[in-house]
Amino acid sequence: MSAEKRRHVGSAAPRREDARLITGRGRFVDGVRLPGSAHAVVLRSEVPHGRVRGCDVEKARAAAGVVDVITVEDARGMELPCGGLGPDRPTHYPVLADTVRYVGQPIAVVVAETAEAAHDAAALVDVDIEPLPAVVGLETAMAPGAALLYPEWETNVGTDFPLGDAEAATTVAEHVVEMTFRLARVAPRPIEPRGVVADYDGETLTVRTGTQAPHFVRDHLAVALGLPVNAVRVLGCDVGGGFGAKEHVYPDEVLICLAAVRLRGPVRWSEAPGDHLAATLHARDATHRGRLALDADGRFVALHCDIIGDLGAHASNAGAGPLVVSAVMSPGPYRFDTVGARVRGVVTTTTPTGSYRGFGQPEVTWTRERLIDEAARRLGVDPVDLRLRNMLDAHERPVSTGMGQEYDSGDYAAGLRTLRDQVRSGHVEDGRRRGIGFSCHVEMTGVGPSMVMKAEGYLAGGFENAVVRMEPDASVTVHTGLTGMGQGIETTLAQVAADELGVPLDHVRVVLGDTAVTPYSPIGSIASRSLAVGGGAVIHAATALRDKLFTIAAHRLEVAPGDLEIADGTVRVHGVPGAEVALADLATSAWRGWDLPDGVRPGLDEQATYDPPAYLYSSGAHAAAVAVDPLTGAVEIEGYWVVNDSGVLVNPAIVDGQLRGGVVQGIGMALYEQVSYSPDGQPSAFYDLPTAVEAPNIDIVHHQTPSPVTPGGTKGVGESGTISSPAAVGNAIAAALPEIADRITATPLTPRFLHRTLTDRNR
Amino acid sequence: MSAEKRRHVGSAAPRREDARLITGRGRFVDGVRLPGSAHAVVLRSEVPHGRVRGCDVEKARAAAGVVDVITVEDARGMELPCGGLGPDRPTHYPVLADTVRYVGQPIAVVVAETAEAAHDAAALVDVDIEPLPAVVGLETAMAPGAALLYPEWETNVGTDFPLGDAEAATTVAEHVVEMTFRLARVAPRPIEPRGVVADYDGETLTVRTGTQAPHFVRDHLAVALGLPVNAVRVLGCDVGGGFGAKEHVYPDEVLICLAAVRLRGPVRWSEAPGDHLAATLHARDATHRGRLALDADGRFVALHCDIIGDLGAHASNAGAGPLVVSAVMSPGPYRFDTVGARVRGVVTTTTPTGSYRGFGQPEVTWTRERLIDEAARRLGVDPVDLRLRNMLDAHERPVSTGMGQEYDSGDYAAGLRTLRDQVRSGHVEDGRRRGIGFSCHVEMTGVGPSMVMKAEGYLAGGFENAVVRMEPDASVTVHTGLTGMGQGIETTLAQVAADELGVPLDHVRVVLGDTAVTPYSPIGSIASRSLAVGGGAVIHAATALRDKLFTIAAHRLEVAPGDLEIADGTVRVHGVPGAEVALADLATSAWRGWDLPDGVRPGLDEQATYDPPAYLYSSGAHAAAVAVDPLTGAVEIEGYWVVNDSGVLVNPAIVDGQLRGGVVQGIGMALYEQVSYSPDGQPSAFYDLPTAVEAPNIDIVHHQTPSPVTPGGTKGVGESGTISSPAAVGNAIAAALPEIADRITATPLTPRFLHRTLTDRNR
Repeated sequence: MSAEKRRHVGSAAPRREDARLITGRGRFVDGVRLPGSAHAVVLRSEVPHGRVRGCDVEKARAAAGVVDVITVEDARGMELPCGGLGPDRPTHYPVLADTVRYVGQPIAVVVAETAEAAHDAAALVDVDIEPLPAVVGLETAMAPGAALLYPEWETNVGTDFPLGDAEAATTVAEHVVEMTFRLARVAPRPIEPRGVVADYDGETLTVRTGTQAPHFVRDHLAVALGLPVNAVRVLGCDVGGGFGAKEHVYPDEVLICLAAVRLRGPVRWSEAPGDHLAATLHARDATHRGRLALDADGRFVALHCDIIGDLGAHASNAGAGPLVVSAVMSPGPYRFDTVGARVRGVVTTTTPTGSYRGFGQPEVTWTRERLIDEAARRLGVDPVDLRLRNMLDAHERPVSTGMGQEYDSGDYAAGLRTLRDQVRSGHVEDGRRRGIGFSCHVEMTGVGPSMVMKAEGYLAGGFENAVVRMEPDASVTVHTGLTGMGQGIETTLAQVAADELGVPLDHVRVVLGDTAVTPYSPIGSIASRSLAVGGGAVIHAATALRDKLFTIAAHRLEVAPGDLEIADGTVRVHGVPGAEVALADLATSAWRGWDLPDGVRPGLDEQATYDPPAYLYSSGAHAAAVAVDPLTGAVEIEGYWVVNDSGVLVNPAIVDGQLRGGVVQGIGMALYEQVSYSPDGQPSAFYDLPTAVEAPNIDIVHHQTPSPVTPGGTKGVGESGTISSPAAVGNAIAAALPEIADRITATPLTPRFLHRTLTDRNR
Repeated sequence: MSAEKRRHVGSAAPRREDARLITGRGRFVDGVRLPGSAHAVVLRSEVPHGRVRGCDVEKARAAAGVVDVITVEDARGMELPCGGLGPDRPTHYPVLADTVRYVGQPIAVVVAETAEAAHDAAALVDVDIEPLPAVVGLETAMAPGAALLYPEWETNVGTDFPLGDAEAATTVAEHVVEMTFRLARVAPRPIEPRGVVADYDGETLTVRTGTQAPHFVRDHLAVALGLPVNAVRVLGCDVGGGFGAKEHVYPDEVLICLAAVRLRGPVRWSEAPGDHLAATLHARDATHRGRLALDADGRFVALHCDIIGDLGAHASNAGAGPLVVSAVMSPGPYRFDTVGARVRGVVTTTTPTGSYRGFGQPEVTWTRERLIDEAARRLGVDPVDLRLRNMLDAHERPVSTGMGQEYDSGDYAAGLRTLRDQVRSGHVEDGRRRGIGFSCHVEMTGVGPSMVMKAEGYLAGGFENAVVRMEPDASVTVHTGLTGMGQGIETTLAQVAADELGVPLDHVRVVLGDTAVTPYSPIGSIASRSLAVGGGAVIHAATALRDKLFTIAAHRLEVAPGDLEIADGTVRVHGVPGAEVALADLATSAWRGWDLPDGVRPGLDEQATYDPPAYLYSSGAHAAAVAVDPLTGAVEIEGYWVVNDSGVLVNPAIVDGQLRGGVVQGIGMALYEQVSYSPDGQPSAFYDLPTAVEAPNIDIVHHQTPSPVTPGGTKGVGESGTISSPAAVGNAIAAALPEIADRITATPLTPRFLHRTLTDRNR
């Protein structure tokens, strides 16, 4: 579809989800009411490490209202996948185990007629655990003589491998900036807790769960439970935020489904208030030893990152994936002679880490962009000039980064120049220290080519399917296995389909992830791929449908299909006024199987697959202006600017929302958020999140370099906001406080930390 | 698939539906429990004909628990289709009307929080109807000066047209047997009453209803309610018998859906015990003046049927369809020089008539086969010999019947000879009179070619779709828009798919009619088409899937696809032991999008359409042995034999069940069943059905002449049992009581009728 024919793509159409969500008609898991549902409570370990010697459930089983208690014996052999750490490492972990390795690990499930009865009975379960030493923190875990989580490994290092040039930036260069950076362990915090309502009728296990990837959940539930795949149905509901936390299959899902199968009836479970911080995967928590080498002219010569990530108690199904992405995306938008990384994933007695918006990219952007600012400071050059001097040229595409990525499009310098023009700094004299920080990134989006995923060891493909159906009245339904968790995919896919089919936007309905209803989506709505990859499938399916309409109309109007165009609910002969036929007329005829040219199948429903031939590289440049109160260490973000390029925008208002939300999450990481563990392995119950009060005004400018890869020219944007924002804030604070700039390396940059560091330096 | 490769097709696999149904886990509409459902009662006319002057619902509206009352004003403009009677006749009728024309016609709907409150409030509705004359019976309706249902027509004859040779059998022939026959008005009696649970959430109207045709219901509900088609979802449930009664869209469905839309919530309704006889469509009720002309040698020269059918108060969506089918199928398995018919449909102030197993074919078989027996009696020849002498030759195919039908296959004489060999008569001396009667028929099945349906004025096509999906573990799901109402379609489609895909039967799951989940089925499970047409679609889709598996396996094994075969869960190279790959391996690879040959789409799901190029003609020969007690007129059926040929049998046990059930319904028509009206238009509340006690042993022999039309060689069989059974029983009674043979013309042949007729004759 040429740009001039587009009516809906590019417009800020109101999100169709909002009427439902705002008026309380959202369909969330916990709102599902199945008559006769039992309620489950997952009993979790309160010790970080130990061997389960016994689990006496007799009292619980005898308690009023209890219908079932599930222990490790009942779930023997049920496993979920670990992201591959290497040939000597387990590929799966048990959903209930004889050894506990983190506070929050499931130990047993109590099922009762009411939630209260289940909670009361759970308190009666008597678990006897022989304690083993806690292992908290990378240094502890890697220290000689450290207690081992898996003694058979003889180390806590789960995986260790180089990528790119292992020697990068170790050779002689004029300037080498070498520092250690860390983004703290954080917890993705969707508004909606995780939840499951599972029902089994003896034939089908029907699972409603707040997931980003219903088919992924289905596939793994079937294997874990030993059910045929065609006996498991997983329905996504409205998902109240995912951010990566809901792309995983958790032991909880398997256990609640097991309870439903045993009960032959519905069982419901929702994350308890205390569960989330301990039992939902954490993220980030990686230490990067970064080395940036520059020549005398400030040209970037080499970059190397020694990445050590905390996997937690075992590899989640994301495994060391975020660490690898940190490594391969380390060059960002810049040119280096050589780039390299070492990747290590370490197990500790903490909650496993997994996916979170950005997936390794905020971490390495923090490292790279802080290194660049530090280099500029040391060289006495403007950090924006230093960046511009080293940026990849927009005209040289595709360009290989030296880390296995081939950037296809994007004008990074133009973005940064636009950003510099946008930034306005204030001049208030209030005793606070002010600074402006910049950060640039290239974002890997649109996971991804299935063959690349195979090469990278994933257990799923990266394509998307769509079925587009035009009903007899020319109303249109789009079916996709993707899910909506706030990103407006119902609206944007409708915009895409409406343009291709020449129908009003409100005639298009979008049906999202339900494994019984929608086509296969191997990995669902993750990795900034929903619109770019799923939209590609919708365009392909809608185009096939349009071609079929043209074929039928050409037969009817006795013209060539190439003479036809579609718009305003009609197919018409280009340039011949009045020579047209209504879509509803064609559609009725097609569904009746009447008046069709030879060989044309009745009906108007087309399925198409889109498997992107490459990743889609978006880019962004962020700037933050901060004011730091030296008396308290408090940081206020006074201004925030984004120039983002994620290719063609289907709905600019939705993209703005994605960027704003992501930036606020990045600010949260930079200033507030951290899951902390005591040395003896107990997680803190305290977690500080930014609110609307902490969210600055965010000015956004869009550049639109169309993707040469996707049919609609779109790229992913879901994670963009989070990737540069920690670094932009960190660089701004470093700019405001140059005397402690070399201490701005680890998040969160709390008032306490800044105040103490300033005080120490001034002492 | 060649016969020798078939493992499941042809085997009497146990019906997979039965475990669910027998253990009380059937999913019937009335078992659907949606929280907060309101209950609806449809208030119906108690007068047969009149003008509604007023309908005071204020008291009802004010009654406790009442949430809504719907009257004609609220449903203004909502209509359902009439089967076309001709250019001057209405194409639609209103769901609520200002004129009532039958007892049972809906007048208003009361919706309340409980069923009791709705019933109580319905009694408070005050309807003022100005009475008009009742018009009951064809003679009354067609008499000069009759009261008119539609004065603008100036007649009660809704349609009147000739088919074939209007002069057939009026020319001079050696022998002409001319008699008037009638099958009484009967009511299809499924075990499960009709019911609807409708829910509207502001976006989607979700309708659960016991229907044979969910898409058909969806299409017509959308039009009636003015909703976009893509906003209406209709789910079939387990349907407890259909028999044609549940192929229609009734005003009740529209009204309950309207109530749900108005309420923005769930509303439930079930046929009240008194509703069924008045508010569910009746059937048969046609009078045939038949003329059979023979030459001196007993050769059939000509056949003419003057068919007058009682349409009831208006044409149902079946319209005059059963009358037309009577006419076109009048030749049966015999050769005539000329055949013709006149078809008239007449309106009366009675419940409209519609579809019922056989759809016009039991009626005309009664006429033709009684005529033949009467001719044999008059000519003094054996009725079986007379039939054999006039049967179409098996080798002469296709053969045109002179009534627009082209029979493609079937050896009718072989069937009748086999039947004659089967029949064993008893020789008990108990004062009862004994006789054996035969009947032969050809059955039109597998409706139908979409272009023929267009030509015949249907508003839908006759194709079927299937989606067949093989999951990563090689479990298979078949999706079809057809429904199961007892005919075992879940089992037989699974057998078909299992053979095509080389998987165990229990690895195949069949998902039936749900407009949100299953592909489009224009007219659903009617007209003996589910397996023949739907199975054709399944074979096409499964074949495409198998071809794809072969393509992938050939790439993997480096052989040509033509060298491969599929069985036992593997694809293997023909004649090369060990050269094979497991289906689950291929399927996993396909769903991941890995290792696929160029141009092969990821995934393993194929949709196919099958639009049969012609009707499929099954055939049957039935014999009944009866004993009639002359003292009481009581008839006992002492033996019953069927030779049936419906092509390739997928599941002989299921076909036996279909035949047995149909025969018992035919016996019910012959001996017991009648909806009778008083002259003033009030229906009798009494309806006599056969039970297991009245069901004889039924011996069945199958001939299997494969259909040259369908991919699996199957033909339809769902209606076969009902078509010849009334005539076989009638002929047996006539044979037992030759002195009143010429009075055996109208059903039901009750003891009272037989006793009186015998007594009159002997007087």
